[in-house]
Amino acid sequence: MIDIYAFATPNSVKVPIALEELGLDYTLHAVNIRSGSQKEPAFVALNPNAKVPVLVDGDLTLTESAAILVYLAEKTGKLLPVAGPGRARVFEQLFFHASGLSPAFGNVGFFRKFAPEPIPLAIERFGNEAVRIVGVLDAILARSPFVAGDALSIADIAHFGWLWRRAFAEVSLDAAPNVARWYADLEARPAFQRGIERTAALAQA
Amino acid sequence: MIDIYAFATPNSVKVPIALEELGLDYTLHAVNIRSGSQKEPAFVALNPNAKVPVLVDGDLTLTESAAILVYLAEKTGKLLPVAGPGRARVFEQLFFHASGLSPAFGNVGFFRKFAPEPIPLAIERFGNEAVRIVGVLDAILARSPFVAGDALSIADIAHFGWLWRRAFAEVSLDAAPNVARWYADLEARPAFQRGIERTAALAQA
Repeated sequence: MIDIYAFATPNSVKVPIALEELGLDYTLHAVNIRSGSQKEPAFVALNPNAKVPVLVDGDLTLTESAAILVYLAEKTGKLLPVAGPGRARVFEQLFFHASGLSPAFGNVGFFRKFAPEPIPLAIERFGNEAVRIVGVLDAILARSPFVAGDALSIADIAHFGWLWRRAFAEVSLDAAPNVARWYADLEARPAFQRGIERTAALAQA
Repeated sequence: MIDIYAFATPNSVKVPIALEELGLDYTLHAVNIRSGSQKEPAFVALNPNAKVPVLVDGDLTLTESAAILVYLAEKTGKLLPVAGPGRARVFEQLFFHASGLSPAFGNVGFFRKFAPEPIPLAIERFGNEAVRIVGVLDAILARSPFVAGDALSIADIAHFGWLWRRAFAEVSLDAAPNVARWYADLEARPAFQRGIERTAALAQA
């Protein structure tokens, strides 16, 4: 059995979606980041970086949502081509998400929603970067149905996580019709719906 | 022959270091980001995201420094365990670098060095996060010689890139003796020295 420690967050949702797409059983454990549970000793013992999600599979405890996606894809032989340019494209998009889209969305959301005072320079910096990145993604999705080519991969699941929470960042898809089409296609998949539902329920427990 | 488009930047230096460690021949091409060359049409055709480094290897054009590291490791069968927990640890650290250390260092450097006005809240947010992350890395390196275990991997090379440019972020290793020891060990390796030298020379052309 695979255990997942998570909450209703952009990075957490990626893991249940992947597990549902892969048809793997798992138990979800809520880590309430609103009350600071991710900083309590029991959780920091799982992840010294004090962030959700965390996977526990037998002897392996693994952090970082994208590293968990790679692990699950390689464990099952699905959602990640085993060789060739298609494999390189998946890693390119996973790292474009981790280093580009994710921090831009997270930081513009912080400065719009949580900062104790409005800081136009910071909102502009991260807001513009988030819009620029969505534009880069839109150009990719104008040429192919999925972000790394013709088939669904863990890179789609990674990008989906933050786009699912784009209201936090106040980023719209109105000027990105290809991203909007791709998002709607993914959201309609039964496995995505189950993963989202189980993740969202963590905040209602 | 492998072609690398790069400049003297934290993300660029990772690729020549990896190529030197792997014993692969390559040609380095300077993309002067100080004069905006990364936004010119010829370069954007290589990378629509307008960032260095880019690798061209035969028919494959690949962006994102960490995706390039994974590609080179899998091409040669070196610097990345082929299976098991050691492999998961390398990906965990690659994504911890891409989503954690790299944006924290980049953003605190921006707000300390480039922002048109001082913004204490932003400097505090990203400066504290950079120091916290170096602390997490220090605890890992207190237990093992390299960031993902007992052997050098591409995850060490990824973290090294930004730590090589820590003066930009004004982040010190004084309170992180294990990171300082690891950094000194890496910096002493002949392959690292050659990779750094060739990368630094790109800014002097």
